[in-house]
Amino acid sequence: MTEIGVELDCLEGVKIVDFTQFEAGPSCTESLAWLGAEVVKVENPTTGDPGRRLQPGKPDSDPWYFHQFNANKKSLTLNLKSPRGLEIVRELLKKADVTIENMAPGTIERLGLGYDEVKKINPGIIYCQVKGFGTGSPYETSLAFDMIAQAAGGTISVTGEGDRPPVKPGPSFGDTGTGMLMAISILGALYKRSKTGQGRRLQVAMQDAMIHYMRVPFSRTQQSGQAQLRNGSSRSSAALAPSALYPCKPGGPNDYVYIFTSRANADHWRRLAKAIGREDLIGDARYDTGPARGERAAEVDEIIATWTRQHTKEEAMTIIGAAGVPAGAVFDTLELMSDKSLAERGIMQTIQHPTTGAVKMPAWPVRFDGSPPRVKPSPLLGQHSAEVLSGWLGMGAPEIEALKLEGIVGK
Amino acid sequence: MTEIGVELDCLEGVKIVDFTQFEAGPSCTESLAWLGAEVVKVENPTTGDPGRRLQPGKPDSDPWYFHQFNANKKSLTLNLKSPRGLEIVRELLKKADVTIENMAPGTIERLGLGYDEVKKINPGIIYCQVKGFGTGSPYETSLAFDMIAQAAGGTISVTGEGDRPPVKPGPSFGDTGTGMLMAISILGALYKRSKTGQGRRLQVAMQDAMIHYMRVPFSRTQQSGQAQLRNGSSRSSAALAPSALYPCKPGGPNDYVYIFTSRANADHWRRLAKAIGREDLIGDARYDTGPARGERAAEVDEIIATWTRQHTKEEAMTIIGAAGVPAGAVFDTLELMSDKSLAERGIMQTIQHPTTGAVKMPAWPVRFDGSPPRVKPSPLLGQHSAEVLSGWLGMGAPEIEALKLEGIVGK
Repeated sequence: MTEIGVELDCLEGVKIVDFTQFEAGPSCTESLAWLGAEVVKVENPTTGDPGRRLQPGKPDSDPWYFHQFNANKKSLTLNLKSPRGLEIVRELLKKADVTIENMAPGTIERLGLGYDEVKKINPGIIYCQVKGFGTGSPYETSLAFDMIAQAAGGTISVTGEGDRPPVKPGPSFGDTGTGMLMAISILGALYKRSKTGQGRRLQVAMQDAMIHYMRVPFSRTQQSGQAQLRNGSSRSSAALAPSALYPCKPGGPNDYVYIFTSRANADHWRRLAKAIGREDLIGDARYDTGPARGERAAEVDEIIATWTRQHTKEEAMTIIGAAGVPAGAVFDTLELMSDKSLAERGIMQTIQHPTTGAVKMPAWPVRFDGSPPRVKPSPLLGQHSAEVLSGWLGMGAPEIEALKLEGIVGK
Repeated sequence: MTEIGVELDCLEGVKIVDFTQFEAGPSCTESLAWLGAEVVKVENPTTGDPGRRLQPGKPDSDPWYFHQFNANKKSLTLNLKSPRGLEIVRELLKKADVTIENMAPGTIERLGLGYDEVKKINPGIIYCQVKGFGTGSPYETSLAFDMIAQAAGGTISVTGEGDRPPVKPGPSFGDTGTGMLMAISILGALYKRSKTGQGRRLQVAMQDAMIHYMRVPFSRTQQSGQAQLRNGSSRSSAALAPSALYPCKPGGPNDYVYIFTSRANADHWRRLAKAIGREDLIGDARYDTGPARGERAAEVDEIIATWTRQHTKEEAMTIIGAAGVPAGAVFDTLELMSDKSLAERGIMQTIQHPTTGAVKMPAWPVRFDGSPPRVKPSPLLGQHSAEVLSGWLGMGAPEIEALKLEGIVGK
């Protein structure tokens, strides 16, 4: 197998002490690791990040979630409830450029690692927190996970069929969507700090982060004064017809193609009519403008569906797309995992993990000079303890061994 | 009204020539503008960014979409199809740190502003492209908008009710979700460049970007070998019961609360039982573990719903959240627009736009030393033409007037 992807050095030399868990925090630090930062996960010696889902005394039965969000990182195990463990982590924080946590409200402060404490020992640090709800919010002390952020941040309200209860968007936008906004903010702060040495306190709440992704629905409410409704997959206004999911053969649960005609480009409709063999509709006043089609949207949809039902979603996407009309087949996870182009282009990469074996997983999808960053396997619990304690703090092997015997560092 | 938010100078001095339109590109450059970069939108003098939705000869009837994605930017109008307009933009590119475009495939090259051309005149530039499909993909030359990326990138396949057709996640994750990944990559490249002067070519495809947000569904496919199914808003496995949307009074379309009990924390269930007055269930073997509850998930859901139906979503969120169990009311866009805490904390800010008037809109939700960046209104078409031509290129007023008379710069 040819190695795919490149080792990026954009953030070479940037040291991150990472207390994050699950996804919102880890997705953030993973993006920085892919850009070349040295990200050290500080984990408790027994089960580590709960995202590892390790069950004490049992083999690791579900490592896939953890692999996704912790590639290219290092793992250091430390018992932070021991005075010596705490002392060690404070020494690491003195050397760090960035630290970040997303524990339950109040936890990091109870560990003695709150902002005020850390700022005292390293005034130039970029200190970051991801919480469910913002400081000052009525829900400030409440817990949140992805779905809670998606409920309270509005994304659930606009998702689903119009005459049925709302549904949660399937992907964990509440987590990774938040992590990306924090990564941008950290990088902005780092850029400034590289010139001035200025430390920063950065905070993001998952509810607030969802609002950032809700701006199109908000723009509709700004115009209408009304709450934006959900309407399945279809156009947000009849004047956008056709713009919907259309059924394809052989009729399986994801055999659909999305076809969109933009109100900014009247050619889309004409190209579409031609592509589906309905040139007769071009120039027909009943169909030639968005508003006209909007008056007979159901009829227009049926004209399209009559054609799409005769084709697979891949055929429909290829033919309509080649005609210059936006079209997308609804691909499922298995189809994407098996997609040849995604693998060839390094958007999906296969890691060799010491206990899980080969795992094909998404890489950072942005290409730098033609290549995405290379994915390295997520660390075993405590895999880099000795390397980090030696590299960052200059500890020798006997000292590290003693820490392991005392249970301060994991074995 | 007290001014809320701070003027951030993280990216002070960073110059960006911005050819982006609609949302995927503009959301990226707006995040950089919020961090303090000087972002100059280069727009055609007649209607500008099609996201402005200006109709020639008509008053601006729908400016809200544009406001969302173009705050804190400058607008320069230039006719790029005139030799002099092209010459001017090439002079701007020589001074730029970053340039970015998300036009239809092949458009930027036809303008004479492809990567190879721009690299020749400014080898240190970070040259960025957002496309629908990746270079090398079978759909490389096809158009894409948000919904096309969400179809082809998998997010639609996992959204919706299990026994019904898929639905598109309501928010435009395909656009802004892509823009955020490009912003992170630009900032990584800028950090390196500030030390080495190294230029870069960055490319992201919207389909590929969606895959980044699909990693939890992929982790389930890695475990099962099967395509991940959609299942409404409910748990992804029965062992997570209770974890779903529950109905609240008075029964409106968004009167639901999401209640989640984590498999990583067995206390969630016990706290929840207590909060809803069902201490009797604590310790009952039929309910005390995730797997046990999973065997009677419908019964467990009904126990919760019996309680939630007696409360509004806000009450339910407050009571369950205060008990230490993750809970989120399904807020709609109007409720969020009217939310007092979001406004007080500067997550929603009100701009005063010269033609639209007061507009309340989401700000960048990450707080820097306690404050989010201040939102400034999106620019009028060509509002900063003279300022940019003078500031970047040293042009005098008579020269700029002449360019306007010739139709090279908009009036």
